[in-house]
Amino acid sequence: MKKSIGGKTLVFPAPVLIVGTYDDDHKPNVMAVAWGGICCSQPPCVSVSLRKATYSYGSIVDRRAFTVNIPSEDQVKEADYFGIASGREEDKFERAGLTPVASRLVDAPYIAEFPFVLECRLLHTLEIGLHTAFIGEILDIKVEEAVMGENGNPDMQKVRPIAYEPVNRRYFRIGSFLAKSHSVGRQIGG
Amino acid sequence: MKKSIGGKTLVFPAPVLIVGTYDDDHKPNVMAVAWGGICCSQPPCVSVSLRKATYSYGSIVDRRAFTVNIPSEDQVKEADYFGIASGREEDKFERAGLTPVASRLVDAPYIAEFPFVLECRLLHTLEIGLHTAFIGEILDIKVEEAVMGENGNPDMQKVRPIAYEPVNRRYFRIGSFLAKSHSVGRQIGG
Repeated sequence: MKKSIGGKTLVFPAPVLIVGTYDDDHKPNVMAVAWGGICCSQPPCVSVSLRKATYSYGSIVDRRAFTVNIPSEDQVKEADYFGIASGREEDKFERAGLTPVASRLVDAPYIAEFPFVLECRLLHTLEIGLHTAFIGEILDIKVEEAVMGENGNPDMQKVRPIAYEPVNRRYFRIGSFLAKSHSVGRQIGG
Repeated sequence: MKKSIGGKTLVFPAPVLIVGTYDDDHKPNVMAVAWGGICCSQPPCVSVSLRKATYSYGSIVDRRAFTVNIPSEDQVKEADYFGIASGREEDKFERAGLTPVASRLVDAPYIAEFPFVLECRLLHTLEIGLHTAFIGEILDIKVEEAVMGENGNPDMQKVRPIAYEPVNRRYFRIGSFLAKSHSVGRQIGG
């Protein structure tokens, strides 16, 4: 039996994405975003949605660039802090004790200590409502060598990213292996 | 030490979203999408990216509506099948033994057996490249009563959604509780 709960912002799981930008004074800033994800395969693109009121919003509009930094579960405290504080009032890198690195590809900083970083050039801006979706072309991904798998691709079990539960506002670990995609469904057909 | 792996479609974790539509003959169809997620809080909106070549693409354009159905880990086989087969050739509901239910709010079907369903009216269409992002306003969410939490909100630990690892093409379970958001970061500041 299904219960109607109205129009809420609930999709499970949401990612925890830390958006890196430079402000007008070239000060590096970061903010946490749960509304985002890959949105195109060719060119490879990622979407992140920000409210106009955020300090990072203007930085993306001005610089036409951002990074997306994916924290490991060990960095949940820093990631959460990046969603609470504003770069208008605080130097979030300094306060969290993390190191900004200037991307050579785009006009934005990434977080040295985070295991997985996307460098993005702004491709599209879509005003939706309270949030604006910024769609960035992923020019490169920088990955800690320690999280690379034996097959030459990054291994999510080594990255240990965070799964976010909106509304209840809880972070979870990624759990155990369930099945191979494009494979387990063949028991049914296709 | 970071390694450069080029521009790939990698964000961890990706969700497993099953998009429900009606085709020209009003036949219900479903397809699996990993490129999607919430993209705006007001109005509450979800984005799903589809290739033009998919059968569902035309259905969303024509009907200006879709549902997003979130499978439990017990339904991983059906969810994966929905990403392998095409509604052009197969009746995916019938073959998977699942039940289409006509939404009363939008011109699209949802999956009776899935625990969590969003009913969406198409608001924006953004051509990005190989994929097109369809942004739907979430008019309602239908939730199985069994996955509701004690606080009156759906509980992700009861939904048991699937976390997808792109490129390596693996499905994972959601793991254990890590931390409260908007809270654990206050140890740093904000």
